[in-house]
Amino acid sequence: MRMYDIIDKKKRGGALTKEEIEFFVKGYVDGSIPDYQASALMMAIWYKGMDKRETADLTLAMAHSGDMIDLSEIPGVKVDKHSTGGIGDKTTLIIGPILASLGAKVVKMSGRGLGATGGTIDKLDSIPGFSSERTDEDFIRQVIEIGVVDAAQSGNLVPADKKMYALRDVTATVDSIPLIASSIMSKKLASGADVIVLDVKCGTGAFMQDYESAKSLAEAMTEIGEMCGRKVYAFITDMNEPLGRAVGNSVEVLEAVEVLRGQGEERLTKLCIELSKCLLIMSDVMGCGDYNDENLRKKAEEMIRETIASGKALEKFREFVRAQGGDDSFVDDPLVLKQPLYSRDIAAPKDGYLTRCNASEVGNVSCILGAGRITKEDKIDSSAGIRVYKKLGDHVDTGEVMATLYTDKESILDEAEKRFLNAYEIDINKTEPGPVIL
Amino acid sequence: MRMYDIIDKKKRGGALTKEEIEFFVKGYVDGSIPDYQASALMMAIWYKGMDKRETADLTLAMAHSGDMIDLSEIPGVKVDKHSTGGIGDKTTLIIGPILASLGAKVVKMSGRGLGATGGTIDKLDSIPGFSSERTDEDFIRQVIEIGVVDAAQSGNLVPADKKMYALRDVTATVDSIPLIASSIMSKKLASGADVIVLDVKCGTGAFMQDYESAKSLAEAMTEIGEMCGRKVYAFITDMNEPLGRAVGNSVEVLEAVEVLRGQGEERLTKLCIELSKCLLIMSDVMGCGDYNDENLRKKAEEMIRETIASGKALEKFREFVRAQGGDDSFVDDPLVLKQPLYSRDIAAPKDGYLTRCNASEVGNVSCILGAGRITKEDKIDSSAGIRVYKKLGDHVDTGEVMATLYTDKESILDEAEKRFLNAYEIDINKTEPGPVIL
Repeated sequence: MRMYDIIDKKKRGGALTKEEIEFFVKGYVDGSIPDYQASALMMAIWYKGMDKRETADLTLAMAHSGDMIDLSEIPGVKVDKHSTGGIGDKTTLIIGPILASLGAKVVKMSGRGLGATGGTIDKLDSIPGFSSERTDEDFIRQVIEIGVVDAAQSGNLVPADKKMYALRDVTATVDSIPLIASSIMSKKLASGADVIVLDVKCGTGAFMQDYESAKSLAEAMTEIGEMCGRKVYAFITDMNEPLGRAVGNSVEVLEAVEVLRGQGEERLTKLCIELSKCLLIMSDVMGCGDYNDENLRKKAEEMIRETIASGKALEKFREFVRAQGGDDSFVDDPLVLKQPLYSRDIAAPKDGYLTRCNASEVGNVSCILGAGRITKEDKIDSSAGIRVYKKLGDHVDTGEVMATLYTDKESILDEAEKRFLNAYEIDINKTEPGPVIL
Repeated sequence: MRMYDIIDKKKRGGALTKEEIEFFVKGYVDGSIPDYQASALMMAIWYKGMDKRETADLTLAMAHSGDMIDLSEIPGVKVDKHSTGGIGDKTTLIIGPILASLGAKVVKMSGRGLGATGGTIDKLDSIPGFSSERTDEDFIRQVIEIGVVDAAQSGNLVPADKKMYALRDVTATVDSIPLIASSIMSKKLASGADVIVLDVKCGTGAFMQDYESAKSLAEAMTEIGEMCGRKVYAFITDMNEPLGRAVGNSVEVLEAVEVLRGQGEERLTKLCIELSKCLLIMSDVMGCGDYNDENLRKKAEEMIRETIASGKALEKFREFVRAQGGDDSFVDDPLVLKQPLYSRDIAAPKDGYLTRCNASEVGNVSCILGAGRITKEDKIDSSAGIRVYKKLGDHVDTGEVMATLYTDKESILDEAEKRFLNAYEIDINKTEPGPVIL
C-alpha cells in the first residue's frame, strides 16, 4: 500500500477502505508518512469529504493510535459531555457536580485552551491548589468515590489527533466536518465513556457559524458514536453571544458556583439543566432511558432542580474541588482567588437594544486581557476576563455600564474597550434573541 | 503575509495576487515555507486551478527563482523546442541539426529521464565521448560557431521547479494544467530562447491522454508565453504508439541519423519537418514570420527537404556531436556504439491488424530492459531498448517478427516479451490510425 495512491484516490473522490485509513493513521503517527503527504490528503478530504463509514473508520483508527482508557473498574454507566467550544462556556463545571450529586458517574478529560479564553482545565487551575494531573488509578478511584473527575488529557491519548490537528491548523484544513468529527470523537472513544452528550455550538462565537454546518457536524458525530457502539446525543446550541455573564477563568468558575446555587443567568442555567437531563436520563441513574421520553424529561428536571435547591450539587462541586487538591473556601469568599490589578467599566455609547454580538471578538478581547493563550507557551492570567451585564435583546442607556474588563495589563485596556464595544451592535429597534437550544 | 492565508484563499477558489505567488515561491525555495504547506497549496490548486494571470505570475516567479540564462551575446533570434514527453521521441536530435544547417540558432537545455526511456541527454550520452556539461561560455560559443547546442540543465536553473515537482510527484498533484504549464514554461523562460515551439503529446504514451486536456495544456503554455513576451507555438501530436521505430537510447540516436539521411519512418519524419518548419518560419532565417502563412510554410518545407537531401543536415549533426566531444564515427559504423548482450525477436501471436497500442507500457518494457531509470540513482544501459517494425494499422501474420528487444539482462526477457505483446491489440478488422499532428 502506498500513501501516494491513497491521496490520489481521495483526490478523485473515492472512498478509502478501512485498511487504507489505518495505514495512513499508523504511518503518520510512526513518522513513516511525512507531513507533506498527510497535508495533501487533508486538503483532498476538505474537498471530497468522507462518508459515514470512512469517518467512523478514521475515528477508530485515531482512537487506537495511543492509550485507550479502561474504565471497566468503575461499576455502571460512565457519562461524558463535550462542547465544540464557545465563549464563556463553563457548563462542564456545573453539569459534572449536578450529575454526580444524583449518583451518575461523570468521567471527563479536558484540554487546555489555545486562543480566546482558556479551556476547562485552565478555568479550574484558577482555584488555588487545584490539580488536573491524575494518574489512571487516581482518576478511577475519584469517580468511584465521589462520582466526578476532570483531568487533563494524558500524554498518549490519541497521538494521531494531536499530530493531525497541529498539521491542519497550519494548512487551512481545520474546517472539514469529517475531520472535526473524527478529531472530537476519537478522544471521546479513547476516554472510555459509555454515554456522550455533545454540545455543538453555533453562531458568531463558534466554529460553526450557521445552523446547517452545526447540524452536519452533530449528525456526523452521532453517526460515529452509533457505528462505534457508544450512546451519543447531540445538542445544537446558541453561541451568538457569550454564554452567561462571565468570560475568562476565575470569573467563570465563580459564575458556575452561582448556577449551582440556583442564582445563575437564565440562558446558561437552562442549557445546563437540559444537558444534565439528557445525561441523567441516558445514565443508569434513570435506567439508561430515552431522552425523547417526555415523562423521563419531567422527572429528570425535577431531580436536577431539587439537587440544586437542596445545595447538594454545590456541595458535590466543593467535594470535587477538594478531591483534586483545590481550596474550596473561594465558594464562600471569592477574594481568596487572585484579583486583577486593573478593571474598567464599559459604558454604552448610545441608547438602544443590543441586537448583535460578535462573540468570537469578545473572546479575543478576553484573550488580550490575559485570559487566553495566543501561543502554547503563553501563561494565562486566571483573574483576567470580562463580566457582561447586558445580553442580546436587553436595553442600554447611554453611559450605562454594559460590562467590566479585568486585567493585569493596564496598557491593553484602551484597545480592549474599543474592540469590546465594536463587537456589539446597538439599535433603536429591539430584536428578540433566538432560543439557547436550537 | 502568511502562507496559511494563501492556502485558505486558494482553497476557497480565490485568485492569488502576484505578491502572494512570489511570497510562496520565494519562501518555498528558501525553506521558510515548509513542504506540508506547499503540498496543501498544490492540492488546492489541483482542485481550483489558476487563471491565466496567476499561471503567468507563477511561471515568472519560478523562472526567477534561480539563474536566468543570458543569451544576449548570441546575435539574432534563439529558438527552442520542447516536448511534453512521449515514447521514442527523438525529435530534438533531428530538428536541432536541420535548423542549424539552415542558419537558425538552436539553444536547447534538456533533462535526464526518469521512468520509461531516457531523456534527450541520456540518448546523446550513448555516443562515445559526448558530454552535455557545458559552461555558460561554451554554451554560447557553440551556438555562435555551429548554431546548435544541447546541454544538461545547469544546477541552479529554476530551483523552484525542482522542489515543487519533487513534492507534487509524491503528493498526487502532478496532473494539474497550471502546475504542468508553469513547470515547463518556467524552464523555457529561464533558458532564454526567444521562440519556443511546444510539442504537446497526446495519447496512451503521453501524460495527456485525451485531446481536450492536451489542448488545455497547449493553450495554458502559449498564454504564458504571450504574457511573458516570448513567441510560442504549440502542436498537439499523436502519442498512441511509439514515435518512429526505435525506443531506447542508442537505437533512437541511430534512428535520428536515418531521418537526417532522408530514410526515416514516415510519421516521425513528418513530425520533425513540421516542427522544423514552424521554428524556421518564426526564426530570423525567414524574417520571424507567421507559421500560418501558407507561402512561408511551402518555402520552409522546400528548404528543410533540401538540407536533408543535400546531406547538410546530417553533416551539421556530426559537427554538433564533435563539438560536444562525441565520436561521430558511429554515423558510418553503428557497431562503434555499445552493443547489447541479448536480443529477442517478438513474434506476432496471431494474424490481424495492429489496432491499439498502450504506448506507455511499451515505455515501461523499454525501462525494465535497462533503457530508463526507476530511481534517480539507476544507471542507464545505452544499448537497451526496442525496435518496432510494425506500426498501428499494419498487418501482421502469426509468427511474423513485430519487434526486437535489446538488453543486458537475460532474466528480464520473458517478462518483457509478455508485457510488450500485451501492450498491443491485434484485430481482424483494420483501424486507420489518426494523423501524427492533431
